Amino acid sequence: MRYVLLVQYDGTHFCGYQRQREERTVQSVLEKAATEAFGTFTRVTASGRTDAGVHARGQVCQLDAETSVPAHKLSACLNCLLPPDCKVLKSAVAPEGFDCTRGAKKKTYRYTAYYAETELPLLARYAARLAVKPDLSRMEEAASLLEGEHDFAAFCSAGSSAKTSVRTVYGIQIGSEPLPEGQLYTISVTGNGFLYNMVRILAGEIFAVGCGKSTDAIVRALNGGGRTLLAKTMPARGLMLVSVDYGAELFPPEEV
Amino acid sequence: MRYVLLVQYDGTHFCGYQRQREERTVQSVLEKAATEAFGTFTRVTASGRTDAGVHARGQVCQLDAETSVPAHKLSACLNCLLPPDCKVLKSAVAPEGFDCTRGAKKKTYRYTAYYAETELPLLARYAARLAVKPDLSRMEEAASLLEGEHDFAAFCSAGSSAKTSVRTVYGIQIGSEPLPEGQLYTISVTGNGFLYNMVRILAGEIFAVGCGKSTDAIVRALNGGGRTLLAKTMPARGLMLVSVDYGAELFPPEEV
Repeated sequence: MRYVLLVQYDGTHFCGYQRQREERTVQSVLEKAATEAFGTFTRVTASGRTDAGVHARGQVCQLDAETSVPAHKLSACLNCLLPPDCKVLKSAVAPEGFDCTRGAKKKTYRYTAYYAETELPLLARYAARLAVKPDLSRMEEAASLLEGEHDFAAFCSAGSSAKTSVRTVYGIQIGSEPLPEGQLYTISVTGNGFLYNMVRILAGEIFAVGCGKSTDAIVRALNGGGRTLLAKTMPARGLMLVSVDYGAELFPPEEV
Repeated sequence: MRYVLLVQYDGTHFCGYQRQREERTVQSVLEKAATEAFGTFTRVTASGRTDAGVHARGQVCQLDAETSVPAHKLSACLNCLLPPDCKVLKSAVAPEGFDCTRGAKKKTYRYTAYYAETELPLLARYAARLAVKPDLSRMEEAASLLEGEHDFAAFCSAGSSAKTSVRTVYGIQIGSEPLPEGQLYTISVTGNGFLYNMVRILAGEIFAVGCGKSTDAIVRALNGGGRTLLAKTMPARGLMLVSVDYGAELFPPEEV
């Protein structure tokens, strides 16, 4: 039987999602818990990898197991064996033929940054600091250029193994709210898939435009220009995988 | 010359404010930076201690030093020597006769907790989890009983050295906002001073009433009843010192 899990983690102390020989990763922690729960090695696959330091509010994972535990109680069973920085929020029987990696139709990531005169210890874990206060309407202008189907080859770090660099960005929302010490900014990006470091590069370029850079680089980068046209990759700590959309509700309300 | 500092820290990896022989504390980290900056041992006093694990968004501290660095640039100077989890947001020359401990007129603390079916890794550092969803109007009823001048002896853990346990709570605000996975609650308390663990005990009792406990215990506790009438002390991680009020603006806008 295949089960689907909604997983939340604080990425700070994980070397990314994917299992590695020596490092503490989200996958290794989930597989250790599942293997202990089911008494046999259990692989836990995700909708996609996240990098070291990247957080997830709603990562979707799957595992195959034979168990008499009711599907919606698997989360509680696994949580007893999981550390505080990685928990299973929901669990359910996967739909017929479900594949959490290939079945993902849309993903939403959110990048968070703040402007303040000094670094803010209470935001250090989940946001990057901007040294200059960006202009919101300029950020929105940059975002609108990035929406739609484009070849995002320039928005990709070396090391990507993707077959094509064409992706569709369905929408980019810019949010902003005042802080006692400055201003908070969020960039929420929904797309059908993302290249390696794409959201962090895209966010860096949107903030750069907000801080005065011309939008020419975006236009050129989307038309065959290279990675060096664009601002540097933003730090991992500001990035969060918000949700993964499969075109159907995976976690029906529990039968009480 | 006396200087006043606005200090923010994430309390997670500090054994509280006060210097201790072996432990990492906020005071020891601030004094190490100040001593290095000024070349002579420099004491850094705060408006009050905070316990291990308690955060501060706007702690007020003072130090005495002879330096040619302009007062408003002391923050940047100290921040170069401070770790990411403790930073000086602002610095200024202290008013004549200023004493950051005895001069504090009001303090505001905020306690944050959430209701969700499971623990949430992304809130684990700054909020406590409630296993039952509290009722807001009951929480507000409990809060209103606690406002005003009272003998808060029952709202105090053993080990307090305060001369009197009479304190004035000027106001308690209850906040609530939905989360994707549940509901977030904040209890903001402003008072002229607080006994040892008073805010954590007070918050615990307000949540307990919200979850169904009678308000009788509060009435009895404020009228000579003992600590055991009340709910247990909430965990440190949900508590934050928001601000300290001295009845005057300590950090005037910089002269540019």
